[in-house]
Amino acid sequence: MKKIIGGVTSAKGFLAAGTHIGIKKVKKDLSLIYSSKPAIGAGTFTSNVVKAAPVKWDMNIVENSDEVQAIILNSGVANACTGKLGDENNEIMANLVAESLNIKPSAVFTASTGVIGKQLPIEKIVLGINTIKSKLSATEESGTLAAEAILTTDTFTKESALEYKILDKTITIGGMAKGSGMIHPNMATMLGVITTDINISKELLLEAIREDVKYSFNMISIDGDSSTNDSLLILANGEAGNEKIVKKDKEYDKFCKALRMVTTDLAKQIASDGEGATKLFQVDIVNADSEETARIISKSIITSNLVKTAVFGSDANWGRILCAMGYSGVIFDPDKVDLYIESSEGKLLIVEDGMATEYSEEEATLILSQKEVRAIVDMKSGNSIATAWGCDLTYDYVKINADYRS
Amino acid sequence: MKKIIGGVTSAKGFLAAGTHIGIKKVKKDLSLIYSSKPAIGAGTFTSNVVKAAPVKWDMNIVENSDEVQAIILNSGVANACTGKLGDENNEIMANLVAESLNIKPSAVFTASTGVIGKQLPIEKIVLGINTIKSKLSATEESGTLAAEAILTTDTFTKESALEYKILDKTITIGGMAKGSGMIHPNMATMLGVITTDINISKELLLEAIREDVKYSFNMISIDGDSSTNDSLLILANGEAGNEKIVKKDKEYDKFCKALRMVTTDLAKQIASDGEGATKLFQVDIVNADSEETARIISKSIITSNLVKTAVFGSDANWGRILCAMGYSGVIFDPDKVDLYIESSEGKLLIVEDGMATEYSEEEATLILSQKEVRAIVDMKSGNSIATAWGCDLTYDYVKINADYRS
Repeated sequence: MKKIIGGVTSAKGFLAAGTHIGIKKVKKDLSLIYSSKPAIGAGTFTSNVVKAAPVKWDMNIVENSDEVQAIILNSGVANACTGKLGDENNEIMANLVAESLNIKPSAVFTASTGVIGKQLPIEKIVLGINTIKSKLSATEESGTLAAEAILTTDTFTKESALEYKILDKTITIGGMAKGSGMIHPNMATMLGVITTDINISKELLLEAIREDVKYSFNMISIDGDSSTNDSLLILANGEAGNEKIVKKDKEYDKFCKALRMVTTDLAKQIASDGEGATKLFQVDIVNADSEETARIISKSIITSNLVKTAVFGSDANWGRILCAMGYSGVIFDPDKVDLYIESSEGKLLIVEDGMATEYSEEEATLILSQKEVRAIVDMKSGNSIATAWGCDLTYDYVKINADYRS
Repeated sequence: MKKIIGGVTSAKGFLAAGTHIGIKKVKKDLSLIYSSKPAIGAGTFTSNVVKAAPVKWDMNIVENSDEVQAIILNSGVANACTGKLGDENNEIMANLVAESLNIKPSAVFTASTGVIGKQLPIEKIVLGINTIKSKLSATEESGTLAAEAILTTDTFTKESALEYKILDKTITIGGMAKGSGMIHPNMATMLGVITTDINISKELLLEAIREDVKYSFNMISIDGDSSTNDSLLILANGEAGNEKIVKKDKEYDKFCKALRMVTTDLAKQIASDGEGATKLFQVDIVNADSEETARIISKSIITSNLVKTAVFGSDANWGRILCAMGYSGVIFDPDKVDLYIESSEGKLLIVEDGMATEYSEEEATLILSQKEVRAIVDMKSGNSIATAWGCDLTYDYVKINADYRS
């Protein structure tokens, strides 16, 4: 498997565009992704009871539609808590895209991100969709423009791509995502799109993506707030020409492995770009009695405000990590826990059997002062593992969110 | 029932003292509470799997001891994650108090709050306990000194007291508490002590306090982190001379009502004094389909970082409130929800049937700019209610916690 430069336009037959249509003041705010051939569409969505209009629309398509060929995404307005009018506006958006691309509305995924409770400026969307079609292209640049147009408070675009072989056929998987705030995915990230030219059945594609998020997007947290719009969408158009994958054979496993590399890469980019974040904080749980335990504990740690502020302050306040493990809801023996911190500056054992070691605070602070820091928790009670990604909690997080709407 | 000025020394037969013994640099750090007559002791404690040494000690006393006469509390060091030595130090602390007061060690509750993972400076405790006994007094001032000596990053002491009559007997209930950080009680607040002179059976006292925290201390959250040390202790010494309460009659109900007034008052004081907090944020859920639903939703709202930062910014970003309700884990109909914000500046309906009203942002900001703000959520799906208390998330919270230990 080879990581390559690219994103949603890397796989064969996918075009994309990103542009500014005036939903946001200056920044790009509308993205369109198009597959020249009908593709299989799948997705996973927020578990939030309050679901945005596009989420409801997409869930219905995943359920009932066999062909998906386009994805329209806007930023600036989330189209959540917008009632019937919100659903109508979302449908208008899908219909306009279908018309201009001469496909069925049921072949169009929609996605929105931004402020909750505002209605879409539908007249701007109408004009925007007319113009964006002409911008569609398969270039790497247009993929990046599409990735740029879905950002809100993100500070950089999030793209990833790789390719691998099935016999003589090259399979390519590319993706883009946006995160930043209200990121504590539970079924999917805030917005993510994966495009691939692999030839696979819808059932397996759906199963692959649902299994994947458990280890990728669902393992990141920025502020513990699960959004109303979380959506991970995937299109597979079969353009690679491989023999169709219809059962869980080794080719299916290989695809899942490749998919995980792309989604994990995107998830980590989201975590490192958390609102106000200065550090990527990774938590590895090892030797847990079950994968479930490992996952719950790792997420409890990266979600703790007290742990996150300590990471911001490069303060090895390990008691907060044990505390966060303790209230995670799972039962374990605190007296067995070993805790290491690690970064480019080295690795240090700071807790052994639940108690502090004679570690040097200076060394700990140096390790925690780096851009990417890890906490490794050895439960010594099994052989299950899990990894979660988060970020520090900073002044800027408060600043950004104390007045997000202005 | 009459609210009175006072705290743990208000009830008959209770003495207290608070002093500085050098665990902390300058501030008071040791409190002692003593009942001249043996009292019934009860308590509720953290559900955190990682339990501090004093929590384990007290849980055993509640289980097995019929008489409790003293409570020793220190701040600065939490004596959590301190292994066997931590347990031994805690026992030494209890034994020293028992010796100096000539009571059994099993009649001594202990409590610690402060940094996790540090051992108690036991030699300072030894000297401290010898000196603090002589400071014991029943004055209101000594109760306040005791309340002061348990504070960590709190900015003010938290005390409450009231009295009421059973026939010709005056019943007094007084209490003190500390909170500030790592406050998301789950069984009790971080540290709370209630003293009363009512004559009641241990079984009913225990049941009363366990029921009480569901509506008082367990309904506040500052940062979502449930501490390793959460403890609410209560002593009832019977000095009021009322006929002993041994069954759930109207006198028991009256006591529960009075107790709730004291605990709720203390809980609100903790919420309003959250680390870095500038505002007390109250959430009232009304017309929910069950009390459980109402409680879960109200806590989800006050725990959301995005809601808390919006409150800090006086930004009526109501979408974040509906979002927090949506991921709380309970099922409800978002399209039925009405949302009001209220403060001394007035009351405003900003969401009706799940959608924004035509409210004035200026008016909303004015209402949210006050020291005490309320959100009232009408679920329109039943007649159950719940109230939760929290605070805003500010720059100072980050500042305090980015380097708590220095």
